[in-house]
Amino acid sequence: MRILGVDPGSHVTGYGIVELLERGMTCPDYGEIRFSGGSALERCLPQVYDRLMEVVLREKPDAMAVEDIFYGKNVKSLIKQGHVRGAVILAGCHGGIPVYPYTPLEVKKAVVGYGRAEKFQVQKMVQAILKLPELPPADASDALAVAICHAHTHRGSMP
Amino acid sequence: MRILGVDPGSHVTGYGIVELLERGMTCPDYGEIRFSGGSALERCLPQVYDRLMEVVLREKPDAMAVEDIFYGKNVKSLIKQGHVRGAVILAGCHGGIPVYPYTPLEVKKAVVGYGRAEKFQVQKMVQAILKLPELPPADASDALAVAICHAHTHRGSMP
Repeated sequence: MRILGVDPGSHVTGYGIVELLERGMTCPDYGEIRFSGGSALERCLPQVYDRLMEVVLREKPDAMAVEDIFYGKNVKSLIKQGHVRGAVILAGCHGGIPVYPYTPLEVKKAVVGYGRAEKFQVQKMVQAILKLPELPPADASDALAVAICHAHTHRGSMP
Repeated sequence: MRILGVDPGSHVTGYGIVELLERGMTCPDYGEIRFSGGSALERCLPQVYDRLMEVVLREKPDAMAVEDIFYGKNVKSLIKQGHVRGAVILAGCHGGIPVYPYTPLEVKKAVVGYGRAEKFQVQKMVQAILKLPELPPADASDALAVAICHAHTHRGSMP
């Protein structure tokens, strides 16, 4: 099973692929989508949609796991993040894969073991679980964490 | 010039086409998209995207005018509306038409003449401006109002 994890953000959207092996997991690809050419939604949304569609077509994941929006931000940023997350979910739907949402709390619990873990702890655990040679950047790391969370939740139902 | 106006909502998304004539305007089509099959985003977003793409392909508008999200709501509803608005904008981009955002204040000022107009006043004015035989339903009326707002703003630059 291959899972595409996505962490939608108002400035940066992280993504990463997690592949379940018979023992453990591996990560064939991860990255961050940074909006170029200004912050207008009609530029940003096609960028995030197109990049994720590329990843879906290239990596052929079986599912998308996408992080919920964390409410502790200003309303303007929440709304922009909502737009971006809409484009992310649409890319999953158009790519023909089921989309699973996870709360930040579920993700941290699944990866670090408790829900109040710091960002750096998540990065370290993601690096260790996927045996990555380098610490992945923060937003890609969050995306990989969502994918790992989905893997833990669905391991019992693996083909 | 033909303008597709859209009012994205967390439950209902209104849309309407406004066509500028040499004198006045007319409305060849309007409607409301109500989500069916539950409120999960992975069902709702493709519905709104697909319906708007159908309208774009059928009516061939030159521009999309889309209402901004009004902040005076609960955060959960704002975020869902953000997702829907993201799918709306993406449909405009993928349909190859420029997308113009307008605030609710701008729309009411353009249509009724002042920014604190009631919903029913907007409906009545939209019906009068477009010479519609019936009062359009509230969300379609809001969508037509955004299109009329764009028409007023861009009339000087009409081809």
